[in-house]
Amino acid sequence: MAQFDLVVIGSGPGGYVAAIRASQLGQKVAIIERENLGGICLNWGCIPTKALLKSGEKFESLSHLKDYGLSAEKVGFDFDAIIQRSRGVAAQMNKGVAFLMKKHKIEVIEGSAKLEKGAAAPKVVVKLNAGGERTVEAKAVMLAVGARARALPQIGLEADGERIWAYREALAPKRLPKSFVVIGSGAIGLEFASFYRALGAEVTVVEAVERIMPVEDEEVSKAAQKAFEKRGIKFRTGAKVTKVSKTGQGVQVAVEVGGKAETLEAEICISAVGITANTDGIGLEALGVEMDRGHIKTGPHGETNVKGLYAIGDCAGAPWLAHKASHEGIHAAEHIAGFRSPNIHSPIAGCTYTQPQVASVGLTEQAAKAAGREVKVGRFPFRVNGKAVAAGEIEGFVKTIFDSKTGALVGAHMIGAEVTEMVQGFVTAITLEATEEDMHGIVYPHPTMSEAMHEASLDAWQRVLHI
Amino acid sequence: MAQFDLVVIGSGPGGYVAAIRASQLGQKVAIIERENLGGICLNWGCIPTKALLKSGEKFESLSHLKDYGLSAEKVGFDFDAIIQRSRGVAAQMNKGVAFLMKKHKIEVIEGSAKLEKGAAAPKVVVKLNAGGERTVEAKAVMLAVGARARALPQIGLEADGERIWAYREALAPKRLPKSFVVIGSGAIGLEFASFYRALGAEVTVVEAVERIMPVEDEEVSKAAQKAFEKRGIKFRTGAKVTKVSKTGQGVQVAVEVGGKAETLEAEICISAVGITANTDGIGLEALGVEMDRGHIKTGPHGETNVKGLYAIGDCAGAPWLAHKASHEGIHAAEHIAGFRSPNIHSPIAGCTYTQPQVASVGLTEQAAKAAGREVKVGRFPFRVNGKAVAAGEIEGFVKTIFDSKTGALVGAHMIGAEVTEMVQGFVTAITLEATEEDMHGIVYPHPTMSEAMHEASLDAWQRVLHI
Repeated sequence: MAQFDLVVIGSGPGGYVAAIRASQLGQKVAIIERENLGGICLNWGCIPTKALLKSGEKFESLSHLKDYGLSAEKVGFDFDAIIQRSRGVAAQMNKGVAFLMKKHKIEVIEGSAKLEKGAAAPKVVVKLNAGGERTVEAKAVMLAVGARARALPQIGLEADGERIWAYREALAPKRLPKSFVVIGSGAIGLEFASFYRALGAEVTVVEAVERIMPVEDEEVSKAAQKAFEKRGIKFRTGAKVTKVSKTGQGVQVAVEVGGKAETLEAEICISAVGITANTDGIGLEALGVEMDRGHIKTGPHGETNVKGLYAIGDCAGAPWLAHKASHEGIHAAEHIAGFRSPNIHSPIAGCTYTQPQVASVGLTEQAAKAAGREVKVGRFPFRVNGKAVAAGEIEGFVKTIFDSKTGALVGAHMIGAEVTEMVQGFVTAITLEATEEDMHGIVYPHPTMSEAMHEASLDAWQRVLHI
Repeated sequence: MAQFDLVVIGSGPGGYVAAIRASQLGQKVAIIERENLGGICLNWGCIPTKALLKSGEKFESLSHLKDYGLSAEKVGFDFDAIIQRSRGVAAQMNKGVAFLMKKHKIEVIEGSAKLEKGAAAPKVVVKLNAGGERTVEAKAVMLAVGARARALPQIGLEADGERIWAYREALAPKRLPKSFVVIGSGAIGLEFASFYRALGAEVTVVEAVERIMPVEDEEVSKAAQKAFEKRGIKFRTGAKVTKVSKTGQGVQVAVEVGGKAETLEAEICISAVGITANTDGIGLEALGVEMDRGHIKTGPHGETNVKGLYAIGDCAGAPWLAHKASHEGIHAAEHIAGFRSPNIHSPIAGCTYTQPQVASVGLTEQAAKAAGREVKVGRFPFRVNGKAVAAGEIEGFVKTIFDSKTGALVGAHMIGAEVTEMVQGFVTAITLEATEEDMHGIVYPHPTMSEAMHEASLDAWQRVLHI
């Protein structure tokens, strides 16, 4: 007899939320975590970085006080206090997850799990952190094992905790380095670049493809690079890293840009070249779990090819985002519990908390065109938005992509202050299958920066009002 | 022959946007403005107050630098510079409207309009600011004449520019007074209270009904009062103002609270007791224009009972909000031009830019119940939202109201940081007639404060994840 209805392996947002949902549906649930409840996201990712970035953003804003009629002298920061605040936030979130597990009567098992052949589902053998072993059997097993920073040992790019950092080291350094080379211009690389630059460090970001933020719309990439350069961040795009070497003082990063070799030097190199799913060492091969380019292959409800085994979140494929993991976790938990969830398709937005922020959902203009779609494109800059002018936040714009034939909103892209909080409006619209008529009819409140969302939708159909 | 297809009287957001839309639809348009292009909203309302509030908010945040690991000494402000910045923002917006009128070939006539009997529509006789008179004839006339601060001369409450201020005086004072009594706890009164308190003034707000922000949900009113009191603003609710008198040093405001008389003293009294539509002196009586409790009575397209005469915005009734005016202006302009606009019903959100901010849309819990609806109510506090904790913005909550039978989202209420930019997501949802299944299915990006919107929707159906 199975001891549990569901065992979740990994307690990141996807895992612990799935466990809560299963418990709400009357399931008996256990969750296995080898390190910190809340996983990378809460402890070493999304949450603590946002704390750092907030300190950086506030510090940067102190150099613009005069614009607002304000003044201050001897502006400064305590680097340790900034780091400690961020660690405190992570600790608070971690405690919060522990509370939720207790409240929902979810058994937390601290240890490393390995799968073995089982009856209804694979057996889970846990090497307990406290010592010893425990075998857990359940009707269903959900892998929410996440991912870790990718290393490229062949070119010397492997976090060593000293000169070469991945996100963990970058989140809790003992002192503030003077200079950085950041390899990778996705959200993680740019957020660290933004934070350390705000505190005055020299930062150069290296990106292999021709533009930064390669997953974003091209216009956003371009505007973002300009905005970051204005703040003093340097970029090498179309730059292939050939070798990372440690020197007496720091690191040397050898790159090839347009066939030309160049060496970048800095005290610290931050590696942000993507992630590797944590699928090794947990017995997937022996069970014959089907994989797809390094990730676990899953069906529409998160089911793998092995009976009773599910996978959600980063280990089950891109986009590697916590809200995608939570969404998959909830859906799989409902499916396992026999709860017929309604057929709602919601797109996964992407958010980058740099200064300015970047947020987007749906197709880029390039992707829509590549898919053979005829599109109408709208744009609206914040510099003519009343609230943005009043707040002194005129950087950036909103861009919308509509299907010309059906009128459906298929993509939206934003760069500017607090756009990460605004993008949910477009997510809501796409989820509810809004057309241009809907988008034009929505009454956005005045005076808000969100009015730029309306104007961008109007602009796509030559009806923009304020430009 | 009419010289114009459309003459718009009043160039606030409703008026000038209607003029632009008409011009886009090929109409020949004139706009008449007696003072500043952009009307009260741009010049003496929404926009310049937001500039002041931003300075106030940033100044207040300087006392919390330590929380973020930051420090500064001799923190201060230059009151004149704050006011000048706000005036500059208004001037910039005003110039922007002039540019838009020119771009769309809309003739701007500076003067005061009066209506007389006409052919297709009333004739408009303009007493030109430059001297002389001009009669303008058009196929349609749109009244977008707005409103002004209400005065209550019978109790001595009438702005005098010295001790008793309405919004105009409060927006451009020559020096910072030490103390205020603000009469009225709607958005206007509270925004000034919030601004002047942030700069250190003593502020007491008097409200006639039993709770502040009477149009908001009761729970929001209560939380808002608590948050404002924490910042040192004092309140007298259920307080009837019986007399406002000027003294040697300032003003005395006599109030009755629960049958007990009390006298409040301050340097300045700000009057924010509502507005009066600007419907006097423009010839409405002679034309026999039908009125409804001080406002012009209009049909579904803004039409009045007089042929060819339309009215939109504040002069045509509550809510007195710029986005409601723009929406009505566009709709009426489309109707006049024979453009068949699609049948989209979007609710009008309300935003208050205090600290914390308040934003809401649709029905309050009280209004929904009073209308005989069975409701499900959800709540989620920002203090357990990861992004809010990371940003140090844990004040406030989100509350959602669903119809129990149909599952329709019928109202949403928020108090907290930047909720004015978030509420458009709920506006979008209600416009698109979202049910609880839709709201549960929307993937809100992580980590954002907007996740609290999702949780509040889940909570209404006992599915909340993080409490």
